[in-house]
Amino acid sequence: MAPQEHGDKSKQMNTKEKIILASLDLFNENGERNVTTNHIAAHLGISPGNLYYHFRNKTDIIYEIFLQYQMLVDHYLQAPTGRQLTVEDQFAYLEAVFDGLWSYRFFHRELEHYLESDPRLRDGYQSFTQRCLESICSILERLEKASILKPQSEDDRRTFALNAWLIVTSWMSYLKTAAGSDAHLIRKETLKQGIYQVVSLELPFVNESVLDKVQRLRQAYRPSI
Amino acid sequence: MAPQEHGDKSKQMNTKEKIILASLDLFNENGERNVTTNHIAAHLGISPGNLYYHFRNKTDIIYEIFLQYQMLVDHYLQAPTGRQLTVEDQFAYLEAVFDGLWSYRFFHRELEHYLESDPRLRDGYQSFTQRCLESICSILERLEKASILKPQSEDDRRTFALNAWLIVTSWMSYLKTAAGSDAHLIRKETLKQGIYQVVSLELPFVNESVLDKVQRLRQAYRPSI
Repeated sequence: MAPQEHGDKSKQMNTKEKIILASLDLFNENGERNVTTNHIAAHLGISPGNLYYHFRNKTDIIYEIFLQYQMLVDHYLQAPTGRQLTVEDQFAYLEAVFDGLWSYRFFHRELEHYLESDPRLRDGYQSFTQRCLESICSILERLEKASILKPQSEDDRRTFALNAWLIVTSWMSYLKTAAGSDAHLIRKETLKQGIYQVVSLELPFVNESVLDKVQRLRQAYRPSI
Repeated sequence: MAPQEHGDKSKQMNTKEKIILASLDLFNENGERNVTTNHIAAHLGISPGNLYYHFRNKTDIIYEIFLQYQMLVDHYLQAPTGRQLTVEDQFAYLEAVFDGLWSYRFFHRELEHYLESDPRLRDGYQSFTQRCLESICSILERLEKASILKPQSEDDRRTFALNAWLIVTSWMSYLKTAAGSDAHLIRKETLKQGIYQVVSLELPFVNESVLDKVQRLRQAYRPSI
């Protein structure tokens, strides 16, 4: 469920769903370390006891948020069947992936810490990554079949997919650390400048016939920093 | 100062240098969160008061370690003058950069947290990154002049340098989270498999005359996972 839909859905949500959604908002806005289960309960106007009925602790809430995040990304990365992929499809994938990164932005920040504290999350995240890398490889193969990308070996496709993954998942941290952006000033639009970097990876493999179009669409994400 | 040199140098070091070196070792081995200034003092067989005489707190020790790290990397990334670069030079740079990542591996893990707690470090790290990106651009330009890489625009060189930086700085975290390697089982050799990923970035730009050589040298870092 994308956070943009909160407004419409909040009326039909049950308490458990409301807790997940409020936690996600509070973690993103204030940093997960600064948010206690008491804050979450107070924010929702429910008793701590009511919250504990649904979740034993923050670790359980974070795990539930991860399950939603992976469902979202798995859904995003499914290539449509029955037709060839287009250049626009490719940018739509990247937009969706960066929307997901933005909506769940607290999660990658303390990822290593979360994985150490929760073996379920550790195993889940590992499978999730491997599944994402396979999905990226499938999309690359479909882009080759659609004559957008030049054919690559399976091995090169894997290497490419992994580099794309590394760039996507480290972009937010780059903005916060190396580019010196104040964490509170980073906006969704700034985050999406990462798309410029990811697309540059594939430029050497883009077929001549669509190169102008890819270059033009890529320019919209050019970092201003 | 690379940790490999500890054995030879430790006898001539003063207390301040010994504290920095012991802290670096303990942070890398046990995680910085689990190491107190008392642990460091006990490890060196000095009194906590003696340690506080040199460093007010852990933040000051971490800042001093960062200064050493940046001095090391700045030194690594200086291209030799008076001769053309070779393919071997390029792999030597990557080896050196990954040696540095290994020797100071605790640092990148909690980087965002450190930068938030210490404005000196925040500014220092930002300048350091920008300087590294410029150094990488210079090296790329020198590789073009040596006919190892095909000529690129300055803009493409910058994008390339940034992607290389993102891959290098996120590789350790990838191994720990997504590849599911137990943090204690990651060895320097596994970390250096990141070189395979970085070199793949440049393959489309490598001149035909040296492509075989680059491919052959790259194979040595092929990830086994």
